[in-house]
Amino acid sequence: MRIVVLAGGIGGARFLRGLKQAAPDADVTVIGNTGDDIHLFGLKICPDLDTVMYTLGGGINEEQGWGRTDETFAVKGELAAYGVGPEWFGLGDRDFATHIVRTQMLAAGYPLSAVTEALCARWQPGVRLLPMSDDRVETHVAVDVDGERKAVHFQEYWVRMRAAVDAQAVVPVGAEQAKPAPGVLEAIAAADVVLFPPSNPVVSIGTILAVPGIREAIADAGVPVVGLSPIVGDAPVRGMADKVLAAIGVESTAAAVAGHYGSGLLDGWLVDTVDAAAVQEIESAGIRARAVPLMMTDTGAAAAMAHEALALAEEVRA
Amino acid sequence: MRIVVLAGGIGGARFLRGLKQAAPDADVTVIGNTGDDIHLFGLKICPDLDTVMYTLGGGINEEQGWGRTDETFAVKGELAAYGVGPEWFGLGDRDFATHIVRTQMLAAGYPLSAVTEALCARWQPGVRLLPMSDDRVETHVAVDVDGERKAVHFQEYWVRMRAAVDAQAVVPVGAEQAKPAPGVLEAIAAADVVLFPPSNPVVSIGTILAVPGIREAIADAGVPVVGLSPIVGDAPVRGMADKVLAAIGVESTAAAVAGHYGSGLLDGWLVDTVDAAAVQEIESAGIRARAVPLMMTDTGAAAAMAHEALALAEEVRA
Repeated sequence: MRIVVLAGGIGGARFLRGLKQAAPDADVTVIGNTGDDIHLFGLKICPDLDTVMYTLGGGINEEQGWGRTDETFAVKGELAAYGVGPEWFGLGDRDFATHIVRTQMLAAGYPLSAVTEALCARWQPGVRLLPMSDDRVETHVAVDVDGERKAVHFQEYWVRMRAAVDAQAVVPVGAEQAKPAPGVLEAIAAADVVLFPPSNPVVSIGTILAVPGIREAIADAGVPVVGLSPIVGDAPVRGMADKVLAAIGVESTAAAVAGHYGSGLLDGWLVDTVDAAAVQEIESAGIRARAVPLMMTDTGAAAAMAHEALALAEEVRA
Repeated sequence: MRIVVLAGGIGGARFLRGLKQAAPDADVTVIGNTGDDIHLFGLKICPDLDTVMYTLGGGINEEQGWGRTDETFAVKGELAAYGVGPEWFGLGDRDFATHIVRTQMLAAGYPLSAVTEALCARWQPGVRLLPMSDDRVETHVAVDVDGERKAVHFQEYWVRMRAAVDAQAVVPVGAEQAKPAPGVLEAIAAADVVLFPPSNPVVSIGTILAVPGIREAIADAGVPVVGLSPIVGDAPVRGMADKVLAAIGVESTAAAVAGHYGSGLLDGWLVDTVDAAAVQEIESAGIRARAVPLMMTDTGAAAAMAHEALALAEEVRA
């Protein structure tokens, strides 16, 4: 079975670990979000790709969900001693090495997809990890600060500001001109099923879908497309998805997110058992829905979710 | 008193620490060798400038004489895990931060002299540290390996090969086209005395003198130029200076090194007490010489050497 998964960071990575347990023999291609990539200290940092790679490769800091295990922060401390920031972005010493290798390879002319493949040669994530695009896409968030509207990088909004102010708009800058990375459209066309993990529907999966050609390829693939709600009981399971959903006028409910993707794209949608009442509304909009436990408390729980998603896909197909 | 010092790495840095103790009120400008600079991992590394900066700023690893105190090697270990080398160059995590700041500033368009000044704003070395040039100069060493002559970067010859094979030639590539960094010629013209610490006469001081204009400015300054022999009892005090001296046809003796600089450049020369017999030969070549202890066992010893050098300079002047 060939499965294509659109993934953001922590939620996507943990779901993928469950999927690999639930379907160990499946051929999994991950299309990773690169809209939250950032250049810091002259280095190219791809937080979502790295979170997937480290999580599946056994190098993740389990507790925080991102960054490396047994991490130290000597480089960052020294940069601060030189007065060089930003200090709000947590870059550990081990993590730095990944960005150094990536930056060197990009400078040598390799596209991000080739760089990602080279990094994965070490991590052996057990999936094929593709960036959504080799072209630069950078998610910016419009915020009002002291009565003035300004655009900040998504990382600045998310990490430094902790989404404490409302997002007025979310713009994946460069997406319109971006091309899907080599292999992305081919993987979608060859897929037996496409899954949307409980990743952020705006700044993770939404950004991937903003690359021209990807949404269309998924809609045209003629295979089940099944997603899992990142909203449980009207609140995001993790992160601050409600802030960016509000910016695009979508309610923070499992049903509203399903409606946002729409029946033209989505065939099946899993909501948490606490949102069982929403199943009927979602199905009346033409999307098959089931209520199952959606809290990824451990890999077993994530595997059960993946199993339910694949089961719903088979139901859709039948 | 305005003192100009031409400095390489460890020997120059330790001598400078002694000089600051011996002449705490002097206005010291250091012209640092950049011929052993190297690009690794996409970063610009200036080993000699950093050794001077760390030593005078209190951040040096005292035991090894280069690199940072309390150093860790997480980044390097991770780079090796990615298969990215070279492994023979010892780059610690704290040290990395210096190179990241430098590389970023250079990429932003600042010349190396401005970058060095910015880095020194943190380290407060108590001297004005200038690179010999803002232009790229890279010392290459010609060696015969398996019957074939090839050129290797000085760092590769010194660190990886440990100077185990004979150097056939030493070439400061780019020196002929290099210009002295801003302030270099001005500092020499304004100096009351110019000192050559017991640094390597070929790949440290020799490289600085290879930048067109510097040797001439020193010769024309009309002030005492006094050096300290890096050779004691026919062997280098530190490092493998004999290897590169042989490449340029100079014997590894205190007298031969003095003769290599020549009386047109050098007014005074300190040799170690074990080389007292050489004093007469050196003086007969027109260079005033004295035999004093030249082992920098601690800062007090280095200060005594600096004191002797300044005393010899006054003697020359009188």
